[in-house]
Amino acid sequence: MVTSRSDSRFAGFRDARVMITGGLGLIGSALARRLVGFGAEVLLVDSMVPDAGGNPANIADIRDRVRVNIADIRDREAMRHLLAGQHFLFDLAAQTSHLDSMNAPDHDLAVNCAAQLQLLELCRAVAPEMAVVHAGTRQIYGRPQYLPVDEAHPLRPADVNGVNKMAGEAYHLLFHDVYGLNTRSLRLTNVYGPGMRIRDARQNFLGIWLRRVLEGAAFEVWGGEQRRELLFVEDAVEAFLIAALKRETAGQALNIGGGEPYSLLGLAEALIRANGGGHFERREFPEERKRIDIGDFVTDDGRFRELTGWAPRVDLDDGLARSLKYYRRHLTDYL
Amino acid sequence: MVTSRSDSRFAGFRDARVMITGGLGLIGSALARRLVGFGAEVLLVDSMVPDAGGNPANIADIRDRVRVNIADIRDREAMRHLLAGQHFLFDLAAQTSHLDSMNAPDHDLAVNCAAQLQLLELCRAVAPEMAVVHAGTRQIYGRPQYLPVDEAHPLRPADVNGVNKMAGEAYHLLFHDVYGLNTRSLRLTNVYGPGMRIRDARQNFLGIWLRRVLEGAAFEVWGGEQRRELLFVEDAVEAFLIAALKRETAGQALNIGGGEPYSLLGLAEALIRANGGGHFERREFPEERKRIDIGDFVTDDGRFRELTGWAPRVDLDDGLARSLKYYRRHLTDYL
Repeated sequence: MVTSRSDSRFAGFRDARVMITGGLGLIGSALARRLVGFGAEVLLVDSMVPDAGGNPANIADIRDRVRVNIADIRDREAMRHLLAGQHFLFDLAAQTSHLDSMNAPDHDLAVNCAAQLQLLELCRAVAPEMAVVHAGTRQIYGRPQYLPVDEAHPLRPADVNGVNKMAGEAYHLLFHDVYGLNTRSLRLTNVYGPGMRIRDARQNFLGIWLRRVLEGAAFEVWGGEQRRELLFVEDAVEAFLIAALKRETAGQALNIGGGEPYSLLGLAEALIRANGGGHFERREFPEERKRIDIGDFVTDDGRFRELTGWAPRVDLDDGLARSLKYYRRHLTDYL
Repeated sequence: MVTSRSDSRFAGFRDARVMITGGLGLIGSALARRLVGFGAEVLLVDSMVPDAGGNPANIADIRDRVRVNIADIRDREAMRHLLAGQHFLFDLAAQTSHLDSMNAPDHDLAVNCAAQLQLLELCRAVAPEMAVVHAGTRQIYGRPQYLPVDEAHPLRPADVNGVNKMAGEAYHLLFHDVYGLNTRSLRLTNVYGPGMRIRDARQNFLGIWLRRVLEGAAFEVWGGEQRRELLFVEDAVEAFLIAALKRETAGQALNIGGGEPYSLLGLAEALIRANGGGHFERREFPEERKRIDIGDFVTDDGRFRELTGWAPRVDLDDGLARSLKYYRRHLTDYL
């Protein structure tokens, strides 16, 4: 993707001060890459909590063009200092593992819920004019009552992570409504691509699949019929960039889907196709995951598309091929 | 109201161990009064946080028939010990001031959100069969998008209290869905009656109105046209008792309204009528309250009525008269 100063849609980022929490993660690092291309001053904040998404390898190619500050979003005084003077905040830091949220609910609450409230209080205090884009999640809908799921679908989170992400997002909408903060939330489907964790199945089924096929081993498909969408990271980044500049999105929570839904089996086959070989085994869902699984999920993101003209552009085969190519070169950085 | 062992609907409470958090508050103390009448072993837990609802005067008449344990629901080990062996939990402890939630959001989060998650983890561990009724609130809907508001109405909390109560309730529903806990939430409208705080306007406009008329002073009506419902505490108690015994309500969040909605002016006039005199002044909404006000609110509680046969029985004139009578005798205990 061309990321240059010549893309006039994003001229608003030129010389802008932009802070990204979760900045060494999958989406944060890809956002940073676009933003330095636009001439922004980029500050990446990451907690480097083990087993979260932060990985210095994600910014190896832009390391000398960004500022990196290791700090946890729960650290009030660090955040107060870092937020002051920023023009944009991409608020991506999160605990994203559904299973971990059930086993360590307090930690999930602290990061996804309490730290969001604190961050917004700090935004009010030191950067009230800043544009904020919060990374929400389709997880807050829980098991769909109808498909595709639009923003009016009831919220019935199916795990602790979903409850905390629901509350974290609601603070953003509230601080818009009450204090006029320029913030919005994008309810993301599964995002994948170069830079994602592939060490294990903690955050996303696809990561461990990628690792296994690259290592020439079989990967496991749990269940298989459930439909999911996958959004390539560059398409997610585009949505964040557009949302940050589009004032009309302020105060809204907007779905961001991933184009065509596939069954897990269909995704497994696409991965093997993209890799030029590989094999997988179907397994029953592990019990502790089954009880928090949400079944089929298909997103209706018509509202965001209409508001902004955004649409995903990288199809699954291409996205998987680019991911495999990246990890073949950089595998050891991600194990 | 007759509260005796002869009410066969509530035979399930006879000799049952019942814990009530927020037990010295308006609803908690009135629940306790009914429950001791049924022959339950009642444990009242209250933090006695200043300016919350707890007041020992509320249980003066039943003090020797209940056990009182002063402890905060945030106190994990105290809660673990107290919950063990209980058959019922009425989970009423909360920070209920909307304005305080904006000025001290961390405290509201700790009590209404984080402590709920912790309490449910403890229920799983030490009392997994216990029946739980959580005190929810209509505040989580925010400004109504239509009237009357049913349970399918979108959740868009208008203050920090609403976000935290939304999350607190969602944990209850989640722990039902995932772990099979026998819990439900009642989304209450404004509850009033003998035992409510009347010292100031922190929790409920009616409290300070009562105080002013009893002191022969004018009270202030902010705005005046907004419609609100008032539910007399005994009717609220009846809803809690029924919900605790009705297995079909488990996993549900159910609206509890207050019968006829009145404008604030209509309520002010009813209060003066019930008092046999008094006067009030209309005022503009104070700015800090205006921005979190939700406008008209009318509840559709048809689902709970259909499921249980419950309906409010104490009309406004009667409820106000009984409240005034109570505070005339006990005023000094509430100032």
